[in-house]
Amino acid sequence: MQNLKLTIAYDGTKYQGYQKNKNASNTIQEKLNSTFSKYFNTTVECIASGRTDKGAHALGQVINFKVDTVLTDLQALKSDLNNYLPHDIVIKSIERVEELFHSRFNAVEKTYQYRIWKFNADVPPLFERNYVYVLDRKIKSKYMRAAIPKLIGEHDFKAFSSDKTKKSTVRTISDITIDENENELIISFTGNGFLYNMVRILTGTLVEIGAKERKLDSIDKIFQTNNREDAGYTVPANGLFLMDVKY
Amino acid sequence: MQNLKLTIAYDGTKYQGYQKNKNASNTIQEKLNSTFSKYFNTTVECIASGRTDKGAHALGQVINFKVDTVLTDLQALKSDLNNYLPHDIVIKSIERVEELFHSRFNAVEKTYQYRIWKFNADVPPLFERNYVYVLDRKIKSKYMRAAIPKLIGEHDFKAFSSDKTKKSTVRTISDITIDENENELIISFTGNGFLYNMVRILTGTLVEIGAKERKLDSIDKIFQTNNREDAGYTVPANGLFLMDVKY
Repeated sequence: MQNLKLTIAYDGTKYQGYQKNKNASNTIQEKLNSTFSKYFNTTVECIASGRTDKGAHALGQVINFKVDTVLTDLQALKSDLNNYLPHDIVIKSIERVEELFHSRFNAVEKTYQYRIWKFNADVPPLFERNYVYVLDRKIKSKYMRAAIPKLIGEHDFKAFSSDKTKKSTVRTISDITIDENENELIISFTGNGFLYNMVRILTGTLVEIGAKERKLDSIDKIFQTNNREDAGYTVPANGLFLMDVKY
Repeated sequence: MQNLKLTIAYDGTKYQGYQKNKNASNTIQEKLNSTFSKYFNTTVECIASGRTDKGAHALGQVINFKVDTVLTDLQALKSDLNNYLPHDIVIKSIERVEELFHSRFNAVEKTYQYRIWKFNADVPPLFERNYVYVLDRKIKSKYMRAAIPKLIGEHDFKAFSSDKTKKSTVRTISDITIDENENELIISFTGNGFLYNMVRILTGTLVEIGAKERKLDSIDKIFQTNNREDAGYTVPANGLFLMDVKY
């Protein structure tokens, strides 16, 4: 049995997310499973580092699956599988890993990016239109940057999640950076794990701070009450990219 | 009467081209005319620097139109019109020009780019997939660069055109450059005018030279016979961008 680790990228615009709770054929997972099952002529079940939301994208999602087939040329396999996958899902690399490797359980760090198209950008997004959140008001990155030290570190992020089933909601964010160019503001989050909707609610909270709709010390209150209502809104999924998973 | 000059960008993926010979509503021109006519509550007819093919794109197409309405704030007008246009057409700038300005007749120089996704690129295009021609064989840019001096200058480009109605097929190409990165080869053409399909046939000819399917001195023959069959094939429209029009 061979265990293969794949780094994949996808444009999530047309998908119901990486994986849906109920049966849905239009998910990234379903496209991967059906394509690989057909290719290997056996049932292939991909395990991912985690789900991504409906409409969200990935540049560095990691999946793994096991097959009996003896594979010698992984570069040729990559090329073959890319030919069979839809054009909005691309395999960036394939490597052989030990049989116990599990892309979800063994993930130790993830990085997400969230792209915001600034309200005072000179023009609307064109080629970027499915990959950015077009903001409807002005924000200042310097206000947002002031909030970063309050978010970094180990916290109970329960208030920053839509998930009601997780047992522990304690996570550690190791880094948040905000980059700005003429049209965009790009927020990068790195941490040991992210709850359902956490990056989008963190971003919504930062946007409110950047727009002076929320005070900086409100973040202290969020961590005291752990109440979803005290945190910011959930920004749309289409600006969200899973960039990297570390093992 | 005010004459307005607009620089626009568009993703041509879903359109039948800038303008169609027969009646077609799904053209860039039709979207512009109908949006502007509705906005100004009068019939607006846009004139463009030239047509672009079905599936081709623009970063710097120039159009002009005349309206009676007194316009004071062109930045606000741009913002308004961008709100009404489909998301795949964007106005980059609007300026008031003299009444005699005509975006087609007054154009003195145009630049096009053609983007090729290399056969030996490590991965297929993902976010670029509608904007590049995915090549099915290896080409070497150094062979292609050797052909540039033979194409630059004033020539009868009849063989490099699908157009049978033009009176003069003599054009001057002032510059051709080939840029290369890890995945792409980008060819830029600048000249005083381009015939129908000329950039795509020039590119097809260069690709054949880059793939060693065609000899360098075949270009001399093309200019001798002026025969379409002697020139290269027409590469797909989706890699083509109108970048800039000079007046």
